[in-house]
Amino acid sequence: MTHEHTVAPSPTGADDQVEHSHHGYISHKDAYLVRLRRIEGQARGLQRMVEEEHYCIDILTQVSAMTKALQSVALGLLDDHLHHCVADAARQGGDEAKAKIAEASAAISRLVKS
Amino acid sequence: MTHEHTVAPSPTGADDQVEHSHHGYISHKDAYLVRLRRIEGQARGLQRMVEEEHYCIDILTQVSAMTKALQSVALGLLDDHLHHCVADAARQGGDEAKAKIAEASAAISRLVKS
Amino acid sequence: MTHEHTVAPSPTGADDQVEHSHHGYISHKDAYLVRLRRIEGQARGLQRMVEEEHYCIDILTQVSAMTKALQSVALGLLDDHLHHCVADAARQGGDEAKAKIAEASAAISRLVKS
Amino acid sequence: MTHEHTVAPSPTGADDQVEHSHHGYISHKDAYLVRLRRIEGQARGLQRMVEEEHYCIDILTQVSAMTKALQSVALGLLDDHLHHCVADAARQGGDEAKAKIAEASAAISRLVKS
Repeated sequence: MTHEHTVAPSPTGADDQVEHSHHGYISHKDAYLVRLRRIEGQARGLQRMVEEEHYCIDILTQVSAMTKALQSVALGLLDDHLHHCVADAARQGGDEAKAKIAEASAAISRLVKS
Repeated sequence: MTHEHTVAPSPTGADDQVEHSHHGYISHKDAYLVRLRRIEGQARGLQRMVEEEHYCIDILTQVSAMTKALQSVALGLLDDHLHHCVADAARQGGDEAKAKIAEASAAISRLVKS
Repeated sequence: MTHEHTVAPSPTGADDQVEHSHHGYISHKDAYLVRLRRIEGQARGLQRMVEEEHYCIDILTQVSAMTKALQSVALGLLDDHLHHCVADAARQGGDEAKAKIAEASAAISRLVKS
Repeated sequence: MTHEHTVAPSPTGADDQVEHSHHGYISHKDAYLVRLRRIEGQARGLQRMVEEEHYCIDILTQVSAMTKALQSVALGLLDDHLHHCVADAARQGGDEAKAKIAEASAAISRLVKS
C-alpha cells in the first residue's frame, strides 16, 4: 500500500475532511482501471496489426485513437488531482500550497508537450 | 478597464491579500507583452517568407518555433492562474472553488488538445 | 526573390511540369497570407487582452484558438509540400528522393512535438 | 495474412522493386513489436500504480512517458510509410499518387491533433 497522503485540518471546516482524505482519483479508481485495461488491449491490438502486416495507415489510426484515450485518462487524473490534492494544499496555504501548484504546473507542461 | 476580479479575505491571513488582489499574470504583465510582441513579429515574418516564396520546410520550421513560443506563454499564464486565482478560490472553498478548478481543467484540456 | 527551386524532368511526362514548377503552397499563396494576417491579428488581440488585464482563462482560450489556427496552416503547407516537392523528388527517385522524404519526416516530427 | 500491397513497375528501374514490395515498416517489424510490447507493459504498470494508489503526479509522469513512446512509434511508422508506400505511389504518378498523399496527410493531421 503506497497511499501515504495525509491531510492537514482544512481551514474551511472538518466537514470536507473525509472527502479529501485520499488522492483525488481514488473515488474513480475502478473506472480508471477499466480505461487503462482497454488501453492495454489497444497496445496488444497494435502488436497483432504489426504481426499480421496490416496497412501502415490503419495502424497509425489506431495509434492516434490510443493516444487520445491516454490523454483523456491524463486529463481526468489531473482534474481529480486539482480538485483534491491541490485544493487541499491551497486551503492550508504557505509553501506547501506553492509547492503543490508548482508540481501540478510541471505535470501540465509535460502533458502539453507530450 | 476589464479587471473586475474581487478577492475574498484569505483564510491564511491578510498578508497574502495584496499579492493576490489581481489576476496572477499581472505581476508579469510586461514580460508577457514582450513575448506576445515577439510572437506577433513571428507571424509577420511568416508572411514575409510566404510572400518571398521561401522553401516550405523552412516556413514549417518557423511555424513550429512560433507554436512552441505560444505554448510557453500559455503554460506561464496557466501557472500564474493556478498560483493566484485558483489558489485564492480553493482557500475560500465551496462551490466557487469547484467552479474555478473545473474552469482551469477545461482550459488545460483545450491546451493539451490544441 | 528567394524562389530557386528547379524542377527535373518528370519521369511520368512533361504534362506535369508546369503544375510542379514551384513550391507546393505557391498556388495558395494569397489564401496563406490571409490566414497568417489573421494570426498576426490574434497576436495583437492577445496583447490588448493582457494590456487591459482580461481574465486569464479568456486569454488562454484565445491562445488555444491561435495555436489551432497556426497548426492548421502548418498542416496545409505540409500537405502542399508532400503533393509537390516530395512527390516530384520521389518520381526522380534515388538519394534526392530519400533526402526530401527524410526532411519532410523531420518537419512532421517537429510539428507533432510542438 | 493481410498483406496485399502490390507494386507497380518502378519508373526508376526494377532494382528498387524488391526493397519496396511490402509495407515500409515490415523491415523493422521486430523492432516495432519490441516497442509495442514495452508500451503494453507501461499500460500494465499504470494499472498497478492506480491499484496501489500511487501519487497522482507520479502516474501522470508515466502517462506522459507512455504518450511519448507511442508518438515515437507513430513517427517511425509514418517515416517508413513515406519512404515506401508513398514514394512508390508518387513514382507511378496519377490519381493513385494523389490519393496516397492525401491519405498520408490525413494521418499526419490526426497525429498532430492527438
